[in-house]
Amino acid sequence: MSAAGGRGARDASRLIRTANRYRVLRQVLADGPVSRPALAAATGLSRATVATVTGELHRRGLVRVAGFEDSAGGRPAALLAMDPVGGALIGVDMAETYVHAELFDLTLRVLATVRLPLAPGEDGPELVVERTAEAVSRVRERGAPPGVPVLGVGVAMPGMVDREGGVSVFAANWDWHGVPLLGLLARHIPYRLYLDNPLRATTVAELWFGAARGRRDAVVVNLGTGVGAGLALGGAVHRGASNSAGEWGHTTLVHGGRSCRCGRHGCVESYVGAPGIIRTLTEVAPGSALLRPGDQMGTIAALAAGSAAGDPVARRVLEVCADQLGAAVADLVNLLNPEVVVLSSWVAREWGAPLLEAVRGAVGRYALGRPLASAEIVLSPVEGDPVSLGAATFALEGALA
Amino acid sequence: MSAAGGRGARDASRLIRTANRYRVLRQVLADGPVSRPALAAATGLSRATVATVTGELHRRGLVRVAGFEDSAGGRPAALLAMDPVGGALIGVDMAETYVHAELFDLTLRVLATVRLPLAPGEDGPELVVERTAEAVSRVRERGAPPGVPVLGVGVAMPGMVDREGGVSVFAANWDWHGVPLLGLLARHIPYRLYLDNPLRATTVAELWFGAARGRRDAVVVNLGTGVGAGLALGGAVHRGASNSAGEWGHTTLVHGGRSCRCGRHGCVESYVGAPGIIRTLTEVAPGSALLRPGDQMGTIAALAAGSAAGDPVARRVLEVCADQLGAAVADLVNLLNPEVVVLSSWVAREWGAPLLEAVRGAVGRYALGRPLASAEIVLSPVEGDPVSLGAATFALEGALA
Ligand SMILES: [Zn+2]
Ligand SMILES: [Zn+2]
Repeated sequence: MSAAGGRGARDASRLIRTANRYRVLRQVLADGPVSRPALAAATGLSRATVATVTGELHRRGLVRVAGFEDSAGGRPAALLAMDPVGGALIGVDMAETYVHAELFDLTLRVLATVRLPLAPGEDGPELVVERTAEAVSRVRERGAPPGVPVLGVGVAMPGMVDREGGVSVFAANWDWHGVPLLGLLARHIPYRLYLDNPLRATTVAELWFGAARGRRDAVVVNLGTGVGAGLALGGAVHRGASNSAGEWGHTTLVHGGRSCRCGRHGCVESYVGAPGIIRTLTEVAPGSALLRPGDQMGTIAALAAGSAAGDPVARRVLEVCADQLGAAVADLVNLLNPEVVVLSSWVAREWGAPLLEAVRGAVGRYALGRPLASAEIVLSPVEGDPVSLGAATFALEGALA
Repeated sequence: MSAAGGRGARDASRLIRTANRYRVLRQVLADGPVSRPALAAATGLSRATVATVTGELHRRGLVRVAGFEDSAGGRPAALLAMDPVGGALIGVDMAETYVHAELFDLTLRVLATVRLPLAPGEDGPELVVERTAEAVSRVRERGAPPGVPVLGVGVAMPGMVDREGGVSVFAANWDWHGVPLLGLLARHIPYRLYLDNPLRATTVAELWFGAARGRRDAVVVNLGTGVGAGLALGGAVHRGASNSAGEWGHTTLVHGGRSCRCGRHGCVESYVGAPGIIRTLTEVAPGSALLRPGDQMGTIAALAAGSAAGDPVARRVLEVCADQLGAAVADLVNLLNPEVVVLSSWVAREWGAPLLEAVRGAVGRYALGRPLASAEIVLSPVEGDPVSLGAATFALEGALA
């Protein structure tokens, strides 16, 4: 129904056609090789619509006939699958210490990976753009079979990104303001470009390939150094008025509590972002051997290993963090009433099942009964780097629009 | 794009058609008498779509030709307006101490009002249903001109309401569980019935007649005895997986803080619901003359008058409450990135401009710059009872679906 907020009937029917293409292609990706009648059954679309959409996808070279299925008496039904050589997609995870580019075939299988470090001080837009262009060029050379066109390059970068103007307006540690990043990238990269941030990249990855696929309302909780909540409402990413929805990390968990890097107090991130968790460790057990000074990832890994091994300090930190995280996730459940909450990013991956179990318990304590009953809480099933996968998915969506 | 989450192409195009009818009718309500070309310009729909939709609305008797406009040289353009005698709508605000029914014409002007008290102890579903049927019958007799059909009755009742089954599953003080309310009402009321809760009623009232009209993403913050946040995303009410989205009142403002009537601690409602505000008053100035024991509305009115008159205790309570409310509203701004936040319900109406001003200041302190920049914060412009208006709007929406 959100079409009601769009700009006109032509717009609305264009959105519907794009949404139908997404839906059919998501199903071919999930189930291919698959027949048209099976696609119609799985998507709820009419056979006529499926025939139209698959015809378009076939003409564009995205989908191919991968075989035939005997149908009782009638003529054999074609089985459709993604055409791996129909095109390649590149996803770039641009972070403050590295540029990570991956080249995917149309089944979103990784064909090549290039990771270039950014040294401290290598933080100017021109330099980061050059490094990105280099990573894209290398991953293209390394991975794309001759003659396979690159359909697009998705770039996910931290901070707040204005998709339309392609302007990066904020990056926490880089201190960029109003950088026309899309224009800078376009000077060096000869493919169609799509720019957004890692939160929305992981959200779109969950929508296409993960736990949000086929769900109407989902929340993707990113737990890393920073934290955020990607919102997939009505089967599409909710962006908000200025493409900055999802700043759950800077919602209040403790009014007047811990100071946060955003300058405010008591933000969710200051408790359950990796530095917040480490601060909790130093509060629970000052001087603990689990602490790896200067090594955030190492400390979280030590906590994860410790809680799995029954170390009492690690168990206590898990308990405190899961309680805080559970309260904050319960807020999302109460406010948005989603079908699924997906825990994603490196802290969730590292801590895994014990964190999931403890968070489920805590959400059960904090959420109201009715929204709780319809909210499944899971770990992200996406393998590999969800940010570069999601960035490549922006390029795939772009090719379908 | 949320059509992607729907159930099929037929469903999707039905939703589009319904959304187009809503859009055209909202514009006729706002601007009528208005010409078809002006409707096309205002809604962004094509002239052909506007012609189709207005044709339907005219055939159903909802819209009439109210005059003609000279157009340079061509044939005069018909001016369309709601047909006041095309039908009547009834909205019921069912609360724990009264049943309030209003009869509206199709311009949503109030034609008659009936308010029946519910005495303490009159809390059984059968009795409340009988009282509701009585109010509907009386308001119908009092207000509807002969021959004007009642197109539907919308009923808003507190708690969590399952719209499809029409079952009330929870009402805080009534302690109803799994009551098949829609079925009970249908035995006594001979019109089409639409059931939902007051939060969604005020949200739909803002979407059609208030500050959310024409906005893509809006949040309606209800400030009363209970508090909640109605979400209007993509131009339509966001309901969530089990029609219980919006429970912002039971999201955490102070982890481990004040105990809340929901059994948890530190909920937003325990600070900025009317009883929470009164508790703050007793903390700030025990024994204050502003306190009207046993009279929630009287105490809030005294606080409002006091802060307007410069009373230091009242000013201090306003400051504390606005700070808490600002932090909680900033959470909505950061998470959802809305175009507008509407302060609604009786506490907002009573406190008015001083509260608005203080809340704007506090949101400015707590929200991130980018989502803050696109979020307007306003008092609800809806006059009268937004709950019965919204309930009647459910009936209007039902007549259009
Ligand atoms: Zn913060
Ligand atoms: Zn509560």
